[in-house]
Amino acid sequence: MNQELDAQIEKKVKEVLDRELDNRLAEAFKEKGLGDRAAIIASKGTLDMAYPPLILASTAAALDMETAVFFTFYGLDIINKKKNAHLKVPPLANPAMPVPMPNIMGALPGMTAMATWMMKKWMGDQNVPSITELLEACVEGGVKLIGCQMTMDVMGVPREDLMDEIEVGGAAMFLEFASKANLTLFI
Amino acid sequence: MNQELDAQIEKKVKEVLDRELDNRLAEAFKEKGLGDRAAIIASKGTLDMAYPPLILASTAAALDMETAVFFTFYGLDIINKKKNAHLKVPPLANPAMPVPMPNIMGALPGMTAMATWMMKKWMGDQNVPSITELLEACVEGGVKLIGCQMTMDVMGVPREDLMDEIEVGGAAMFLEFASKANLTLFI
Amino acid sequence: MNQELDAQIEKKVKEVLDRELDNRLAEAFKEKGLGDRAAIIASKGTLDMAYPPLILASTAAALDMETAVFFTFYGLDIINKKKNAHLKVPPLANPAMPVPMPNIMGALPGMTAMATWMMKKWMGDQNVPSITELLEACVEGGVKLIGCQMTMDVMGVPREDLMDEIEVGGAAMFLEFASKANLTLFI
Repeated sequence: MNQELDAQIEKKVKEVLDRELDNRLAEAFKEKGLGDRAAIIASKGTLDMAYPPLILASTAAALDMETAVFFTFYGLDIINKKKNAHLKVPPLANPAMPVPMPNIMGALPGMTAMATWMMKKWMGDQNVPSITELLEACVEGGVKLIGCQMTMDVMGVPREDLMDEIEVGGAAMFLEFASKANLTLFI
Repeated sequence: MNQELDAQIEKKVKEVLDRELDNRLAEAFKEKGLGDRAAIIASKGTLDMAYPPLILASTAAALDMETAVFFTFYGLDIINKKKNAHLKVPPLANPAMPVPMPNIMGALPGMTAMATWMMKKWMGDQNVPSITELLEACVEGGVKLIGCQMTMDVMGVPREDLMDEIEVGGAAMFLEFASKANLTLFI
Repeated sequence: MNQELDAQIEKKVKEVLDRELDNRLAEAFKEKGLGDRAAIIASKGTLDMAYPPLILASTAAALDMETAVFFTFYGLDIINKKKNAHLKVPPLANPAMPVPMPNIMGALPGMTAMATWMMKKWMGDQNVPSITELLEACVEGGVKLIGCQMTMDVMGVPREDLMDEIEVGGAAMFLEFASKANLTLFI
């Protein structure tokens, strides 16, 4: 091949690459779900640890990430209509409580109710939405809420006790989603 | 170059790109470990929090993800042959326990044994595998189990107390693996 | 087009791809932050759960990952200058404590102080750096430390109580960083 033709082909190849590569990479990244998917596991049922999955999920959705939360073990209480307005925070075994108290006191009857009342008051005073309000924000933001089938079976929780908006699924279903997520958190 | 030749070169370039690019991208993604690696840290040694890392890891392996679990802090107990069949769940400081009880009762002698017995019964009734059975499933599924060297040193745990199938390593070794994982969870 | 020209174009395209593609992919991956970013949430304020985010973050930074830790809920104590040298570990509701004790004993006054003293001694005996030393390592390694604005508001923590080196931000700021991270952990 003569040199001139060779140079022309090279120029042409680069032109096509410049035009094509960005699109093809964008497609490949999209297929991998990179950067635009958040997959969160909510495994705790105390009031304090119910906030993080819901705050993070609703914020991720607001940032246009495709977001799912898998509610498993004690975390199933968060999507339990009979329970989620009454989650509690225990004032013991946590020396980092804002108002720390000796464990021997924290174990006394009434103390969990008091700590729960205080946390709700602090949150409310700063206009942090309640758990049920955060759940509404998640639903409105298109967050996929998944109840863990195994936990429902083990704890004997009937479908009708859980929010209407959820799906029911297992670890495999969640992992299929999460395997294409960039952000994965176990809470 | 005449226009006809130009068009023919462009067509040819796209043809070759179509053939080549997907393979090269797939290789590049594979090298980055995207979408096919799960890296899990197990830091808790209670019965309830021993299930999630093992259920998620064995499920990820079944989904053909290259999976590793790093057992650190209290989580080292899960791969401790002398302890892992006897993990316990404490019935206090967790108002989300399926059968909640006042903390003052949960702290009484015998109550941890009772809560542990109950959780094992619920799990068994629904055919959830035991911790040792889940560990076997992980080993059979090719999950890499890593014991934290620092924890062994700090807690004085000799190598022979841990399962034969594990490797021993540090945070850096785990992070090298995890930095190419798509799914990363701290439990 | 004659066959000879066809073959030459194909050869040329592959040559250019070999030369160009790796660089372009590396740039694209870098822009996505893949494999070189670690995003960690520290939500606990007990001594035992303060180690993991700091050990993992300082190690990730040493491995040349761009690393950020978001201190939220009880985890804010870790960057609180008045508190972080005095974090405590409670000896109850955790049957996996290295020296397990009945919960009824663990709840007695003085027991949290004793468990904390023991954990610090074990760590020190194995030359594990203290919490404040680990924080220094993070700062020196260029780890971005972010205090949660909402937690500061809710718990009434003034900026001057927190380390000078931190930034203050919210969940959205952290998620923007984390959405381009490969390693994401909630501790």
